[in-house]
Amino acid sequence: MDHIEIIGFTAAFLTTAAFLPQVYKTWNTKDVSGLSLPMLSMFLIGIILWLIYAFYIHSPSMIAANVITIGSSFLLIYFKIKYNKR
Amino acid sequence: MDHIEIIGFTAAFLTTAAFLPQVYKTWNTKDVSGLSLPMLSMFLIGIILWLIYAFYIHSPSMIAANVITIGSSFLLIYFKIKYNKR
Repeated sequence: MDHIEIIGFTAAFLTTAAFLPQVYKTWNTKDVSGLSLPMLSMFLIGIILWLIYAFYIHSPSMIAANVITIGSSFLLIYFKIKYNKR
Repeated sequence: MDHIEIIGFTAAFLTTAAFLPQVYKTWNTKDVSGLSLPMLSMFLIGIILWLIYAFYIHSPSMIAANVITIGSSFLLIYFKIKYNKR
């Protein structure tokens, strides 16, 4: 593996892992009052574009980071829609 | 400009702009109870590594996105330390 990909995968681990407590907290408390649907949607579209970018430049670490972050954002959007109605 | 950089800069705009309401809200309410210092620090280190990665692969859009996100994360860490003591 390329040296730069080691930096990339470390970056990917740190930035995606920092998101997980938010996902867990939202799932656990069902408190979605602090989450904004337009912002989450904007963020998700941005991450999807980064994923396209990552595929284009053939960056394995960016692809991994963005796929995981798409998953996290999707979950937060799902929680927001699901628990907002209560 | 490269076509892929247009996608990159759009992604950069969307993902960095989605952060700003959080920074504004924290500044405005001074409520940092929901922010975790270890997580913010982890995220900041991750973003710094992405910036190194971006310089290495000569990606203008990634450099821009990460510089702005470093600024946002830095502000949140500053607020967390400043307002936590009150």
